[in-house]
Amino acid sequence: MTEQAAAGTPEAYDRLVEHVRRMTNVGNAAGLLSWDQQVMMPEEGTPARSKQQSALSSVHHDMLTDDDLGAWLDDLDGADLDADRRAVVREVRRKHERAVSVPSELVERISETTSNALPVWEEARREDDFASFEPTLAELVDLKREYAAHIDPDRDPYEVLFEEYEPYLGIGTAEAVLTTLREELVPLIEAVEDSDVDPADPFEGTYDPDRQDDLARSALDALGYDWEHGRLDTSTHPFTMGTQFDARVTTRFDETDPLEGLGSTVHEFGHANYTLGLPRDQYGTPLGQSRDLTVHESQSRLWENHVGRSRAFWEFFWPTFTDHFDVDATAREAYEAANRIYPDNLIRVEADELTYHLHVVVRFEIERDLIRGDLEAAEVPAVWNDKMEQYLGIRPDTDAEGCLQDIHWTHGNFGYFPTYSLGSVLAAQLFAAAEDDLDDIEGKIREGEFGPLHDWLRERVHRHGCRYTTDDLIREATGEGFTADYFVEYATRKFGDLYDL
Amino acid sequence: MTEQAAAGTPEAYDRLVEHVRRMTNVGNAAGLLSWDQQVMMPEEGTPARSKQQSALSSVHHDMLTDDDLGAWLDDLDGADLDADRRAVVREVRRKHERAVSVPSELVERISETTSNALPVWEEARREDDFASFEPTLAELVDLKREYAAHIDPDRDPYEVLFEEYEPYLGIGTAEAVLTTLREELVPLIEAVEDSDVDPADPFEGTYDPDRQDDLARSALDALGYDWEHGRLDTSTHPFTMGTQFDARVTTRFDETDPLEGLGSTVHEFGHANYTLGLPRDQYGTPLGQSRDLTVHESQSRLWENHVGRSRAFWEFFWPTFTDHFDVDATAREAYEAANRIYPDNLIRVEADELTYHLHVVVRFEIERDLIRGDLEAAEVPAVWNDKMEQYLGIRPDTDAEGCLQDIHWTHGNFGYFPTYSLGSVLAAQLFAAAEDDLDDIEGKIREGEFGPLHDWLRERVHRHGCRYTTDDLIREATGEGFTADYFVEYATRKFGDLYDL
Repeated sequence: MTEQAAAGTPEAYDRLVEHVRRMTNVGNAAGLLSWDQQVMMPEEGTPARSKQQSALSSVHHDMLTDDDLGAWLDDLDGADLDADRRAVVREVRRKHERAVSVPSELVERISETTSNALPVWEEARREDDFASFEPTLAELVDLKREYAAHIDPDRDPYEVLFEEYEPYLGIGTAEAVLTTLREELVPLIEAVEDSDVDPADPFEGTYDPDRQDDLARSALDALGYDWEHGRLDTSTHPFTMGTQFDARVTTRFDETDPLEGLGSTVHEFGHANYTLGLPRDQYGTPLGQSRDLTVHESQSRLWENHVGRSRAFWEFFWPTFTDHFDVDATAREAYEAANRIYPDNLIRVEADELTYHLHVVVRFEIERDLIRGDLEAAEVPAVWNDKMEQYLGIRPDTDAEGCLQDIHWTHGNFGYFPTYSLGSVLAAQLFAAAEDDLDDIEGKIREGEFGPLHDWLRERVHRHGCRYTTDDLIREATGEGFTADYFVEYATRKFGDLYDL
Repeated sequence: MTEQAAAGTPEAYDRLVEHVRRMTNVGNAAGLLSWDQQVMMPEEGTPARSKQQSALSSVHHDMLTDDDLGAWLDDLDGADLDADRRAVVREVRRKHERAVSVPSELVERISETTSNALPVWEEARREDDFASFEPTLAELVDLKREYAAHIDPDRDPYEVLFEEYEPYLGIGTAEAVLTTLREELVPLIEAVEDSDVDPADPFEGTYDPDRQDDLARSALDALGYDWEHGRLDTSTHPFTMGTQFDARVTTRFDETDPLEGLGSTVHEFGHANYTLGLPRDQYGTPLGQSRDLTVHESQSRLWENHVGRSRAFWEFFWPTFTDHFDVDATAREAYEAANRIYPDNLIRVEADELTYHLHVVVRFEIERDLIRGDLEAAEVPAVWNDKMEQYLGIRPDTDAEGCLQDIHWTHGNFGYFPTYSLGSVLAAQLFAAAEDDLDDIEGKIREGEFGPLHDWLRERVHRHGCRYTTDDLIREATGEGFTADYFVEYATRKFGDLYDL
């Protein structure tokens, strides 16, 4: 190490960035392998693909925990760097320090346990047999508690795990937001249930998947998806994968419900649009990477709900829709159908815009208590069902439709669920700020003119990559701290109008 | 290093194999990225993809030149291993020793020069301006001579480069085979040209690409392609990519010539069928990898020419063909059309089964002399045209149709061309051995019964991976050393019959 580098001048910084770019490229290669596996791979390709993924993951882990990287970070500690470079160092340091604090042996044990957990969970769900999954869940909880203790033995382990998905908002803020959602949405949904209004539902019938695919492409065209940097395919679970040069979306089509495929497409468009808005010249560094799950989900939810489920959008898009499918309804009726509330639904991924968050709250409270050691795995089904009854007034008859329905815990992901709701809440806050800044955004949506909204999002959110922490980014973009107020206001107004509350 | 490992017992071997499997998986991930780039990637994805490929390639190079790997190889030097393990060590040692002998700086310089060469070559070919490409070609030749000198300064540099693509046949054997081809095929093609016979050519017309795609899939079905471990797509240049778990083929369709897409499909099927026949339990080690380019090309050419261009195949496949396209012809006429000789053709990739090899001989003689320092880059166009005239009786009017037509030298690949012809020669030798072993193979093809040929190839060639060197594999499979006799005999008989010679 030269004296120059030891003094924290750009030499250590440049080496760090070169290393990080290479590491990011290995990670992005792994992303492409995963996209291919879900979209293109022949069914029997799995054994080799798993080994390829595991090799890339181990190479990536070696690069992240590399001693040289640690030395460069030490060199740069307290160095006189500009704000962008400080942000790069901050992001790399956080991930490096987390990675080196967990023994490889534990990382491997978790990876092996989650691999083995998958068929156990699948079988348990199929057979509606929670007991057979319980020891696995208990083991996963123990392993993730151990994992969190290595990162910071002095802090709440759930907080530490939550930071894997949302590093900068703080568990206190998250908990407060989720509590607000529960307190505000439970009575709102009850009022909806008690309402005499029955929104239109004109979409009975059968919808050819190929024409739905055409329709989804028309929607992406209209929203301004950049086909030279992306593509649309179908997969079992819709997702978005990629970089600012190549951000691909997938969707799926239900022959009996054209709104599902369309909604998924618009949701994934929001993710891809964020990814494509990241600065190209910062590709491979944190300044060219998206700001974790809350912000990512805010982008998908903003387009899915605040645009795609707005009355203005349906007025704009209805002629395109009816060019594809012969439905005897008005734009207003289509808008109503896209916003119907289904309080009896038990399944999170099929939930509407309101009840969705209570599904999340149930999971959040349970996983938090599991990880904090306040709840045993064996108690999960009863607690789940009680909470469903308490918050939504429904009780699953089976665990398959209850606590076994989601894959997240099987993957070892505890602390992920809250980011779904935090994303929706942030979407409302961002959209409100955009409405303040932009002249008649509703009118523009009605005209299919999405450019101003694109520009606003790019300017306020996308172009910053990980320059700011999540809370600073929200403050920069909206002028105030993270708050659930806008979401509550939006939900109350929209569903108040729809259900005549 | 423990004493046990130092004594060359399995510990060093096991570590070596674990390392090699991981390295192979990184290489296979890079293969998938390349497939995606050619088949699926949106057009503007290139900048990120290039960086991802370069990261994987540098990770792979680091793993291949790793000091630990060198130490394990030292430990295993002279160790008491069984034949399979000795083969693994032999293959890994060869690649490791080549890689460590070339300075990284030179590897990077070659990579940069070939990247920069691509647009220069494209422009030169488009403008028919060899002079603008000449300095680049000269530089590439110099760099590859330097590269070869690092690997072995005492040997013919062309021999050293040739071994990159075919490590075990020896340049002497290759040269002898190519000389035989030239000596035998020049008069044979002259005789064809002098013949009064004009084979049928019933395929004038337009052929819908979607129906051609259906036809290609029917052909793959009939030949026994394993769709659970593969897929068919289209790409600018047909190719095969993958592993024994997932071997994908691509093809392309010409609206005016249904034989091109069909022939490409059958050719690529041969490659994929070899890959899929490699032992699955040896995935990631040399025992689960294919034996270099000669053997790989023998598999594609065997299916393309000895099966797909046989009279028996056309009798079997003609009803399927005419189910797809209404062509007024007999199976015999289709067979004739598939085997027409075009002595006036200037383009290698459009050449027929006979003239193809003279195109290869021209390139082989020129690149050999360039690398040996016996020819200057500036002389290439004149020498090219002279040789074309001498061997094929035609002289290109432009360098675009002459020495600028192929991309190989631009990629820095000198020594690659011969493997195309060596593959064809080996295909004939293998097919002759299969004919000897199997009862009435022609009759089986006429019935669409390809199982016995599959089994024979799997047993004699595929399942061995890199267990044997190329020459030993040929001897094991056919009972004799590599020889052009069977190809010459086959070509003389087939085209003698067709052209009434």
